[in-house]
Amino acid sequence: MSQSDLDVRLMEIRRHFHQYPELSGEEFETTQTIRSLLEQAGIPILDTSLPTGVVAQISGKKQDPIIALRADIDALPIQEETGLPYASKISGKMHACGHDFHTAALIGAAYLLKEEEKALNGSVRFIFQPSEEIGGGAEKVIAAGHLEKVKAIFGLHNKPDLPVGTIGIKSGPLMASVDRFIIEVEGIGTHAAAPHAGIDSIVVASHIVIALQTIVSRQLSSFDHAVISVAHVSAGNTWNVIPGNAFLEGTVRTFSEETREKIPKWIQRIIAGVANAYGAQATLRWMPGPPPVLNDEKAVELSVQTAEQLGLNVVEPTPSMAGEDFATYQKKIPGSFVFIGTSGTHEWHHPAFTLDERALPIAARYLAEVAKKALKHF
Amino acid sequence: MSQSDLDVRLMEIRRHFHQYPELSGEEFETTQTIRSLLEQAGIPILDTSLPTGVVAQISGKKQDPIIALRADIDALPIQEETGLPYASKISGKMHACGHDFHTAALIGAAYLLKEEEKALNGSVRFIFQPSEEIGGGAEKVIAAGHLEKVKAIFGLHNKPDLPVGTIGIKSGPLMASVDRFIIEVEGIGTHAAAPHAGIDSIVVASHIVIALQTIVSRQLSSFDHAVISVAHVSAGNTWNVIPGNAFLEGTVRTFSEETREKIPKWIQRIIAGVANAYGAQATLRWMPGPPPVLNDEKAVELSVQTAEQLGLNVVEPTPSMAGEDFATYQKKIPGSFVFIGTSGTHEWHHPAFTLDERALPIAARYLAEVAKKALKHF
Amino acid sequence: MSQSDLDVRLMEIRRHFHQYPELSGEEFETTQTIRSLLEQAGIPILDTSLPTGVVAQISGKKQDPIIALRADIDALPIQEETGLPYASKISGKMHACGHDFHTAALIGAAYLLKEEEKALNGSVRFIFQPSEEIGGGAEKVIAAGHLEKVKAIFGLHNKPDLPVGTIGIKSGPLMASVDRFIIEVEGIGTHAAAPHAGIDSIVVASHIVIALQTIVSRQLSSFDHAVISVAHVSAGNTWNVIPGNAFLEGTVRTFSEETREKIPKWIQRIIAGVANAYGAQATLRWMPGPPPVLNDEKAVELSVQTAEQLGLNVVEPTPSMAGEDFATYQKKIPGSFVFIGTSGTHEWHHPAFTLDERALPIAARYLAEVAKKALKHF
Amino acid sequence: MSQSDLDVRLMEIRRHFHQYPELSGEEFETTQTIRSLLEQAGIPILDTSLPTGVVAQISGKKQDPIIALRADIDALPIQEETGLPYASKISGKMHACGHDFHTAALIGAAYLLKEEEKALNGSVRFIFQPSEEIGGGAEKVIAAGHLEKVKAIFGLHNKPDLPVGTIGIKSGPLMASVDRFIIEVEGIGTHAAAPHAGIDSIVVASHIVIALQTIVSRQLSSFDHAVISVAHVSAGNTWNVIPGNAFLEGTVRTFSEETREKIPKWIQRIIAGVANAYGAQATLRWMPGPPPVLNDEKAVELSVQTAEQLGLNVVEPTPSMAGEDFATYQKKIPGSFVFIGTSGTHEWHHPAFTLDERALPIAARYLAEVAKKALKHF
Repeated sequence: MSQSDLDVRLMEIRRHFHQYPELSGEEFETTQTIRSLLEQAGIPILDTSLPTGVVAQISGKKQDPIIALRADIDALPIQEETGLPYASKISGKMHACGHDFHTAALIGAAYLLKEEEKALNGSVRFIFQPSEEIGGGAEKVIAAGHLEKVKAIFGLHNKPDLPVGTIGIKSGPLMASVDRFIIEVEGIGTHAAAPHAGIDSIVVASHIVIALQTIVSRQLSSFDHAVISVAHVSAGNTWNVIPGNAFLEGTVRTFSEETREKIPKWIQRIIAGVANAYGAQATLRWMPGPPPVLNDEKAVELSVQTAEQLGLNVVEPTPSMAGEDFATYQKKIPGSFVFIGTSGTHEWHHPAFTLDERALPIAARYLAEVAKKALKHF
Repeated sequence: MSQSDLDVRLMEIRRHFHQYPELSGEEFETTQTIRSLLEQAGIPILDTSLPTGVVAQISGKKQDPIIALRADIDALPIQEETGLPYASKISGKMHACGHDFHTAALIGAAYLLKEEEKALNGSVRFIFQPSEEIGGGAEKVIAAGHLEKVKAIFGLHNKPDLPVGTIGIKSGPLMASVDRFIIEVEGIGTHAAAPHAGIDSIVVASHIVIALQTIVSRQLSSFDHAVISVAHVSAGNTWNVIPGNAFLEGTVRTFSEETREKIPKWIQRIIAGVANAYGAQATLRWMPGPPPVLNDEKAVELSVQTAEQLGLNVVEPTPSMAGEDFATYQKKIPGSFVFIGTSGTHEWHHPAFTLDERALPIAARYLAEVAKKALKHF
Repeated sequence: MSQSDLDVRLMEIRRHFHQYPELSGEEFETTQTIRSLLEQAGIPILDTSLPTGVVAQISGKKQDPIIALRADIDALPIQEETGLPYASKISGKMHACGHDFHTAALIGAAYLLKEEEKALNGSVRFIFQPSEEIGGGAEKVIAAGHLEKVKAIFGLHNKPDLPVGTIGIKSGPLMASVDRFIIEVEGIGTHAAAPHAGIDSIVVASHIVIALQTIVSRQLSSFDHAVISVAHVSAGNTWNVIPGNAFLEGTVRTFSEETREKIPKWIQRIIAGVANAYGAQATLRWMPGPPPVLNDEKAVELSVQTAEQLGLNVVEPTPSMAGEDFATYQKKIPGSFVFIGTSGTHEWHHPAFTLDERALPIAARYLAEVAKKALKHF
Repeated sequence: MSQSDLDVRLMEIRRHFHQYPELSGEEFETTQTIRSLLEQAGIPILDTSLPTGVVAQISGKKQDPIIALRADIDALPIQEETGLPYASKISGKMHACGHDFHTAALIGAAYLLKEEEKALNGSVRFIFQPSEEIGGGAEKVIAAGHLEKVKAIFGLHNKPDLPVGTIGIKSGPLMASVDRFIIEVEGIGTHAAAPHAGIDSIVVASHIVIALQTIVSRQLSSFDHAVISVAHVSAGNTWNVIPGNAFLEGTVRTFSEETREKIPKWIQRIIAGVANAYGAQATLRWMPGPPPVLNDEKAVELSVQTAEQLGLNVVEPTPSMAGEDFATYQKKIPGSFVFIGTSGTHEWHHPAFTLDERALPIAARYLAEVAKKALKHF
């Protein structure tokens, strides 16, 4: 297959996935399509216990080392508003984060490496991971054993605000940890005309929201990056009864595990202290999500060399407070996650999100080349 | 009819109303029953344009002056849980505030005054008012012209925490004004990981709740009685999106028109100032309800004399932060509203609310006697 | 002495005291003058261990019962700005609260009762109390035993906003309790550029001030009267070092012992909770002052009868959040404290405070008459 | 002079300065000593209108370009507690920030460059700047014209937490801007028992402190570095009078001019909004200090090359929220400011601050070498 033939093929593959998006954990058709596309090219599928997702592998002169390339394959519950001829055919579902692009790029990398199979200095494993959006996908892949013996892992994400031909690479923190919390305040309900007969959970909750601001403003060094947001408040349901309970919900984002561990302790201290001040009670539920994406210095060095070799414009991106469960792999083995410029019109998760498909062969080649390079250095 | 016959009759009438409660504005059967009971006794019904409620009148030696006695007749959307043999037969509706008692007492007063008709020094008007619970009833009665030429008005409310034989009377404020407010905060929604890209309406709303506390603690004299409660807060609907809007709802209770006028201005000042501090906007919707029940000194003096003459134990009650649209009449003419002890087991609006019916003839006699006395002094 | 002679004499006495004001605890000359004025009239001085202040007594047909009349005699550290010919001759000291008036009125009462000595139904004790302004005077009088066997006590205060000829009398609470508090917040000092290295005591103290507002707005019934004010804040001394300690100081005023006991507990709960929320510590020092002036119903009844008999206009005054250690006597025995209208131009403690001396004979007669009446009823 | 002779000489020079510290703006003896030491070595002093501080220059084959090296020369009002044999002989004054070290290092650099004078590719200017600690020194040097025609500037600071042999270099922000602010709140004073008669400036000030926390927590991106600290609060002076005015004072630290411009606008918005919410007024006084130290990329590249050539261990330091008026030069021309490891026992400004003098020849050589390199590249 000529280079331009491959480029067209990958575009077709990507558009197919784009028209048939499937939500996290329900990527059944997507899984079948990936398997077929790989098997047609003679790329062996590894046995897997995963209900969705595909793991394949190409081995060269020898089995080891193993380098993994990863793409995420799930879509979002968003109604597409791009007006594209190949827009989603599934009502209320859309590849609004470009995982269709990631999937097609990884298939392209597999095709490219298949052509050089014999020359490979070990094995390249292709991880088509399910369920990135709601979390849990990377953990399932790891639980199924697919990271064993793997020396390093590489992945990418499209980036609407970088132009095609530019690649964003940096070592250290790139994307934030994503934890969720719920705070429940328990006061004592009472008639709104008789606040003294109860404990006003709304006043307590309001003081908690205010006090939480001081974690970022006073407790953290200005060089620690963290965001603490209460995003949802609900208390009471009418105008003349003070509710006994108030509900607060939000999220914490950080770039270091140390900071990430301290914040829930501070939240706990604040809610307990403020609640006690009013004779109320407050409980914290902490629902940890993916850790921060922390790029390995050596893996990043290979990413940079690969990008320069491909003639890409390498920039150091500002980290993003959004999260990525690629980070879950990086807790186990070295990895490098990069941003591929796609000259997009709208940000991730927007109903009018688009990308410039000319970035697709770039992404495929980057993955193939960085894997080859990693086989020599890990 | 002997006194004990009348007492039994009033108990039967009250129990009938208790079994067939009707909600505010829907008191059709109740209206018919009251009409029949009055007409059977030869008491003339005044023409009225009101769909529910009854106005009747007995005149003596001369037409003027006219003194009004008022009872409210509506019930509440509460499922009765008293277990009484004569409990409500209507599912989900209950006379949980004792308006059945008030209605029967006023019928009793009419019966008693009918017997002395010739001796009356003017006219006594009997106002069986609809729609006290949701408000608007008194205004409709006044709009229909039934307060014209009336010199003074008397009414009562059962009081569970006073024993039968005790009556609570005080001049000046007895029950609070009841106003409702809604505050809407408009910030700018944003991803919870990027608060700087928006204006956090939850933080603004929390500061508003806190700042509102200072109206009572700092702006009002300790001798002004007021309660300001935010009873309902709602903002956002998920954990990772900061909402652009926040909703606050609550109530203000006062005992003086002067204070009542100042408070919404202070609320407006606070929400505007706090919102501006954060670059947000906040709007206040003010929904005025009934004014405070303010008893007239002369009318109260007659109530006291009447109570003492009937051998009742007169106490000065603590005012209540609850409201009563009897206050609406008192904006027009002098009036006295009193609390009749009923040795109740539970507070107003409780599903197990009860009262001791031995208070019923007391209430009827109090109304009849105070009207006679008022005919001589107004 | 004729009535008009007495009136002139009392005016001269009052003006003398006015020109020679002495501060609390230093009323040495004042004490000597009072003694002389009483002894000249043949009124026996009781032995007393008090360094300042005078206790005298007139007995009639029998010793018992004993009724006490009390005046306070101390002045204030205020520079007089009235421009009166008989203004203070002592720089920086002034009878700006009218205790000169109280003292002269009590001397007048003693003169009047001396004339009727034989007819008295027991004994009248005249307590010229030192040190009301800074507190402690009443306690010293009691500690010296001068309240033993006394059945009831009567006193008065001039009232600038009531006209001469009017008297303010009410049973129950008239003047507030006066307690003082100090809150010390202990955080950890740090460079202002590195707040995370310390615990910011200013942020903690600010949250405490805000949270204290909720005691009045949420914890107390609207029918409880209380004021809680932080009046003094001090933390840090330069712009670039966050202080480890913050100091808050203020006062609490109430009208009931029950409320007065609850408030420091709530303050303690708030400061502990808020401080804990930030990892700081806070301690409360509570310095109780005089209790509320709570007038006895029976004593008040005698005050009203006396006032009406003297032809005074009796009004029910709004209570004052200021304090009075007359309350300390009322913790032991029944008492009535009244406000004598003096048509003043400025409020108590103002440098231009004045009063209309025509109120002086009224005050003297009121005291004499109420004592006589009390001898018959206690 | 041999290398080891020079090393000993520089140590002696540094110890001399250490024993005779002079405060900012009063560096008269220090100025004389520097002049003598340079003149003895035949290094020409430039005419200067500065009362303290010295500017000298060595020119090589040609006059241009000119590269500047800068040291600060002032000491601090701190009583030395090191116990060193060469401790400060001046009571209450100490080189507790190591400017003695900076001065000696720059003299050393001048000595070294003097030896290579002929080979220099232009001129090296030596700026011994006064008054860094209290600010204003750099501005005076610039106002005197000493930065004209200078192409680039290099400087250094000792760093106690880096070991001798290590150098901290980074491009972009290294030290923060240092601005000071004063907020004055104007309410209305009142008796602490009558808050409603005034406007409580303490409550307003407390709300302002709390609201200011949200600038860092909500308004700024987590990738903007800023600290906003209120470090001094003063309001009222006794326990029973609510003060009409409250005073707040503090500092703002940032690393970008853009952020630095936005923050006072947000502070202004917050204080105006919060004050208005309570009917008070608040005014902001903004006293700008030095901008952030922002290292030029090209100058930093030369610093790195120089350090590597000298065999130093190059690390990227965490920026410091402390300030440095070296930044003032960098507003005009490119510059690189580095941290020289000195294995110190205590932090800057500590009375027991010390440094390891083995770092002194390293610092001198770094300055000489980087200047030579800069003459070729600017």
